[in-house]
Amino acid sequence: MRLRVALTALLAVGAGALAAAPSAGAATREFWIAAVPVTWNMAPNQFDAITGTRYDPIRTVLGTVVFRRFTPHWRRPLPNTPESGNQNLIPGPLLRARVGDRILVHFRNMDFARRDPHSMHFHGVEYRPSSDGAFVPGVSGPDGNVRPGQSWTYRLTAGPDSAGAWPYHDHSPSMHASIDGGMYGMLSIFGRDERLPDREFVVVFARMGEFQTIDGRAFVGNTPVYRSRVGDLVQWDVMAMGSEHHSFHVHGHRWRAADGVTRDTQNVAPAESFRFRWREREPGTWLYHCHVEEHMALGMIGTYQVGRR
Amino acid sequence: MRLRVALTALLAVGAGALAAAPSAGAATREFWIAAVPVTWNMAPNQFDAITGTRYDPIRTVLGTVVFRRFTPHWRRPLPNTPESGNQNLIPGPLLRARVGDRILVHFRNMDFARRDPHSMHFHGVEYRPSSDGAFVPGVSGPDGNVRPGQSWTYRLTAGPDSAGAWPYHDHSPSMHASIDGGMYGMLSIFGRDERLPDREFVVVFARMGEFQTIDGRAFVGNTPVYRSRVGDLVQWDVMAMGSEHHSFHVHGHRWRAADGVTRDTQNVAPAESFRFRWREREPGTWLYHCHVEEHMALGMIGTYQVGRR
Amino acid sequence: MRLRVALTALLAVGAGALAAAPSAGAATREFWIAAVPVTWNMAPNQFDAITGTRYDPIRTVLGTVVFRRFTPHWRRPLPNTPESGNQNLIPGPLLRARVGDRILVHFRNMDFARRDPHSMHFHGVEYRPSSDGAFVPGVSGPDGNVRPGQSWTYRLTAGPDSAGAWPYHDHSPSMHASIDGGMYGMLSIFGRDERLPDREFVVVFARMGEFQTIDGRAFVGNTPVYRSRVGDLVQWDVMAMGSEHHSFHVHGHRWRAADGVTRDTQNVAPAESFRFRWREREPGTWLYHCHVEEHMALGMIGTYQVGRR
Repeated sequence: MRLRVALTALLAVGAGALAAAPSAGAATREFWIAAVPVTWNMAPNQFDAITGTRYDPIRTVLGTVVFRRFTPHWRRPLPNTPESGNQNLIPGPLLRARVGDRILVHFRNMDFARRDPHSMHFHGVEYRPSSDGAFVPGVSGPDGNVRPGQSWTYRLTAGPDSAGAWPYHDHSPSMHASIDGGMYGMLSIFGRDERLPDREFVVVFARMGEFQTIDGRAFVGNTPVYRSRVGDLVQWDVMAMGSEHHSFHVHGHRWRAADGVTRDTQNVAPAESFRFRWREREPGTWLYHCHVEEHMALGMIGTYQVGRR
Repeated sequence: MRLRVALTALLAVGAGALAAAPSAGAATREFWIAAVPVTWNMAPNQFDAITGTRYDPIRTVLGTVVFRRFTPHWRRPLPNTPESGNQNLIPGPLLRARVGDRILVHFRNMDFARRDPHSMHFHGVEYRPSSDGAFVPGVSGPDGNVRPGQSWTYRLTAGPDSAGAWPYHDHSPSMHASIDGGMYGMLSIFGRDERLPDREFVVVFARMGEFQTIDGRAFVGNTPVYRSRVGDLVQWDVMAMGSEHHSFHVHGHRWRAADGVTRDTQNVAPAESFRFRWREREPGTWLYHCHVEEHMALGMIGTYQVGRR
Repeated sequence: MRLRVALTALLAVGAGALAAAPSAGAATREFWIAAVPVTWNMAPNQFDAITGTRYDPIRTVLGTVVFRRFTPHWRRPLPNTPESGNQNLIPGPLLRARVGDRILVHFRNMDFARRDPHSMHFHGVEYRPSSDGAFVPGVSGPDGNVRPGQSWTYRLTAGPDSAGAWPYHDHSPSMHASIDGGMYGMLSIFGRDERLPDREFVVVFARMGEFQTIDGRAFVGNTPVYRSRVGDLVQWDVMAMGSEHHSFHVHGHRWRAADGVTRDTQNVAPAESFRFRWREREPGTWLYHCHVEEHMALGMIGTYQVGRR
């Protein structure tokens, strides 16, 4: 009983925490998110560890706008990924829910740097046109064109066919530049009674400036280091954003994709997304990367470290 | 009995109409098609409604050659899409049949403008090499190289594994330029006893000139406006042509793809094709588009309007 | 008994031959492979048969490094494809095994021309990190960075989920240039009791220089001519390497892909791979090609010849 109260409190601050055991009934999950300007470094160590190439910050640092989690009513900013501190702002917060849940995403445009309009458009879930978040003159309302200082609440439902990992992204008049700058994130919808994984890795492939990034970072040493232990139930949520097709590969592992096919490499078109799971049994340090050779050479590669039990 | 006669008459003019209820036995479906030169405007309103950009006709109008339906023996031209008047000539006519049917496509090359050879090559159906329609010197016959003024009859069978939506296109010596100019269309093969949908939308993604087009049109206001009502059984037939991979997305909906996976975004490589259905229940105006950001910005986007029942 | 001895002898020379009938138990399959410099002509007939364009050897011949089969302990080089003589060196040898088999690949770097490091990285099979073959400074060992004159043995297992056709390729510090030059091949893993096909065609799509090649060759007349007879059980192993997405199409045929979908055209991203089978029943000469128009025009097309029974 005390646990349930604690969980509710946690959800109230937008952490998106789900009970590891399925909850008894459908819930309403609320998230407070804002578009905020930040300075972002795609390669904080200024280094491609594989080729030994050094990159000057002038090539790796850019001013951009990102989706960031907040406490209710946007009182205080929170890290997007609780365990990773405040530096991991691309992608936006992982929004977790279960089939049957209602999801309220309270969005505020705090882009007082460029003063661009922004919005949130969600894949995979049910909503009315007023929560679509896409800009079409003469058709769409304020949901697709939230001006600086304004806010909008997107009202979504995780329907019976919503289980999976799905993109969200800016779909306002500034969408193309905003997506190039990292305004995207993922929804992770679990089945009503589905077991939560022990680890969940969010992998977003997208070009940024002259680099090919994973979660906004380029090159081993900057891209996410995913970690697990032998025996863990590991889930990968993968998507692409932007204008290029990619090819997701993990070394030393295979997975059964949603279509029933065993793969170790999977095509991912812009805004396509997929999730897969495995029970980990391969200790070691493994590469994951985009198998498009030019993308790999431009930074779209990272390491996955599996510890012994 | 009178109905059967009427249907036969309708088929005789190449309308490709199928009975909504399955027909008793396999039929022979005949189509009369010609390659005809036309002047085509990719953006008749000279306008990108989303960005407000105006385009001069010099950039949007081109002389090209398209596939066009005719009455038997090419006596009179017909609109490719009966309900849409004579202006919708890209893609070519939708050729509908059922598994088990024989399909005779009588093709005439009326390209007296460029005087290029042309042909028709069909995906998804059974045929002998003489109906392949592809040009290989020393191997192929006249089917792959129909000269201006000449004609050829392609003899096809919708086999047990032909149910689905499939491309057809020019595969003659002029194929690359002809496909860039819109010489493609779709076959829609239904199962022997499959229910026909209430609405069938043909979506072809292809670059044309400097634009990214849907059915030869660029930008909301020019691309097809698909329409349905709540309760309709809606079918989408999707394919790509040319040299680029695309990513098909519809807002506010998900579908169960042929591989059993629920999606709202699906990769489509050149000449890949797929169909899917849903029972409509989401009133409103929705976007459908290619999710490759650059393609979307260059016109590959349209609206789907769902009325209340 | 004599058969087992004969088989063992055959395997000992690295031929990778499998019994047509399933073997009684799991085997250890050994292959001896080296990286060797060669002069390679992408279009030995200097001709595009479809357009009639002639190409000067200066554009089609390059010095490169390839994977080549050897007798044990690299005593004598062998043709990669036994029936095709010594000229077919791209892709590297087809490595066949059955689920449950151990696979030992003895690799020697004989690149005394460029003196680049090389390695072998295998998809689809199980191995420890020391057989991964990928170069990551500070993480990987000599398996990912085999210097000229050195060798390494990769120890692999065909696991329960390894049945299928999979890539292998260089993953050393020189990997991007080496892959562009043809340092790739395929593993073909059959189920424990799976029937072997009568014909197995290995199709690798990859750009090379200014051309788009199949198995390192461009244009009809240079690309592989696959042959079968009506009644044959035919297997196609298809993959892509490099930086581009492709679209595999065969004329006059359809296949049931691993995801259960009937196709005649299938997307293939870099390092994606798939296999499919059909019982041949369509005599004639058919085209197979990449359906990306620009790739087809740059040589990614060949013929498949089916004889009558």
